[in-house]
Amino acid sequence: MKDEKWFIGVDLGGTTIKLAFLNYYGEIQHKWEIPTDKSEEGRHITMHIARAIDDKIDEIDVKKDQFAGIGMGAPGFIEMETGFIYHAVNIGWINFPLKDKLELETGLPVIIDNDANIAALGEMWRGAGDGAKDLLCVTLGTGVGGGIITNSTIIHGTNGMAGEIGHITSIPDGGAPCNCGKTGCLETVASATGIVRIAMEDLESHKDSKLYDTYQDNHELTSRDVFEASEKKDAYAMSVVQNVTFHLGLAIANLANSLNPSKIVIGGGVSKAGESLLTPLREQFEKYALPRVKEGSDFAIATLGNDAGVIGGAWLVKTKLIK
Amino acid sequence: MKDEKWFIGVDLGGTTIKLAFLNYYGEIQHKWEIPTDKSEEGRHITMHIARAIDDKIDEIDVKKDQFAGIGMGAPGFIEMETGFIYHAVNIGWINFPLKDKLELETGLPVIIDNDANIAALGEMWRGAGDGAKDLLCVTLGTGVGGGIITNSTIIHGTNGMAGEIGHITSIPDGGAPCNCGKTGCLETVASATGIVRIAMEDLESHKDSKLYDTYQDNHELTSRDVFEASEKKDAYAMSVVQNVTFHLGLAIANLANSLNPSKIVIGGGVSKAGESLLTPLREQFEKYALPRVKEGSDFAIATLGNDAGVIGGAWLVKTKLIK
Repeated sequence: MKDEKWFIGVDLGGTTIKLAFLNYYGEIQHKWEIPTDKSEEGRHITMHIARAIDDKIDEIDVKKDQFAGIGMGAPGFIEMETGFIYHAVNIGWINFPLKDKLELETGLPVIIDNDANIAALGEMWRGAGDGAKDLLCVTLGTGVGGGIITNSTIIHGTNGMAGEIGHITSIPDGGAPCNCGKTGCLETVASATGIVRIAMEDLESHKDSKLYDTYQDNHELTSRDVFEASEKKDAYAMSVVQNVTFHLGLAIANLANSLNPSKIVIGGGVSKAGESLLTPLREQFEKYALPRVKEGSDFAIATLGNDAGVIGGAWLVKTKLIK
Repeated sequence: MKDEKWFIGVDLGGTTIKLAFLNYYGEIQHKWEIPTDKSEEGRHITMHIARAIDDKIDEIDVKKDQFAGIGMGAPGFIEMETGFIYHAVNIGWINFPLKDKLELETGLPVIIDNDANIAALGEMWRGAGDGAKDLLCVTLGTGVGGGIITNSTIIHGTNGMAGEIGHITSIPDGGAPCNCGKTGCLETVASATGIVRIAMEDLESHKDSKLYDTYQDNHELTSRDVFEASEKKDAYAMSVVQNVTFHLGLAIANLANSLNPSKIVIGGGVSKAGESLLTPLREQFEKYALPRVKEGSDFAIATLGNDAGVIGGAWLVKTKLIK
């Protein structure tokens, strides 16, 4: 139908900005990327986004009033109500009024949220979350991120820090140092970096392991190497996966006992390991979750990949900007 | 003003039912208790509540249409939308349509929630929560219970289990058995029962401790004994408090890193220890919470005691039953 509103999703990353036009049901109609211009403390970014949108509108010949608004994900600490960014280290923004600037440049209403949170909303709406109202998203990438949805709404907490599950302390004493300044965070164990760190720690004493050969050949290890060797029943790789999934499963079970989600979605690069991650993870989870919590929840691997952010942005416009 | 609506709060416990009439601002106007009649699987309870309300209305000479509705807390597993109780062990109810029956008996609209949750709402509204929109309530009594509020709303999760923070696993290997069937739950460490269990474990090797003398005199220990001896710098009692607050502080910090509450309210019998609990607890919490999470949150001891439930019930009526 002609008067069905469309949404614009924007997902700002350190190297590219992902943009998409989506219809009322969150189906992507057009998507494209532009580079993130971090020069002059990122001051040109909002103008570049506005121009990219206007150019695409011309190209596909729609009217600007087709669009209900822009939902955008950004890294860093965000004041939700005002769309004000306190600090986005990777972009260069300090005290940047993102929402106001983007509204000025585009003439469209804008709503901003944290990038991990809009990815979780995207998975809830059109991805592995399957519409679950109570959803826990865990992103295992370079770091460990999270998005917590209850009653179909993202939890932000009192100063925007909710969902920082990568900084749950998994090893209270003698854990590895974390970027946050603490030690023993889940992120030091269950991120891609953490998995490799654990595998490297004891590699010299496991010269019989495939991982030792891989390291000799490539002069590095990846978390993918660890899961592949584990699938092939390499004993050392299996012990690393066991160690990682013990900490991750315990942390997720403890969260689930508190939040009682119906869906637990695992995303990020590490999640590409699929069942060789999920099977041992479920086993650990089931040891530590309450019976009714276990019954109520399913694990799933995120399905939207890089599209999760723009779809979550569209969801924000649909649910927060229009009636 | 004459047409200001009043609310009825009901808090059902295993031995007494607490009732109160509250004004629009949550101030208790009248409160009283009746015994909980568990005979015949608790089938008379709703009728007793209805009669207690009618008698009080007659006694104080108000009109029934003064009341906007009843907000009630009950133990057990509750289907929130229908107010249906699956199982309330202490009361005897199995598959009991509490909301429907109480509406029938009283002619007033009824809203039901879990007893730990309405206590948390009460503390948020009129107690130590101080109106905080993001609140974590931890109740340290015979067990360890919890209520999690985000955006001024209680989290229920997908099958009503959210907030079961007593079953966070604190000791993954070799912990004490818990009533839930698992081992090493926070409840086995930080409840009144858990604290005494820990103190008893090593008491024989600490005959120099005040706690040893107390036990010889009274043939039992209480959690209060432990905190009192710890305040008097009894080394063994201090080590027990240290152990308990380590596990509790770690669990709360991990939750806070995920939920980012502005207020953490500690209630239940154990919380009467006041600063001799809060001081070591804060110390442990601050070790494991992210800097911004720490900055955003305050600890407080619950202030409403037994009134928290009826006040939280009134809040539910105010926010869920009327516009």
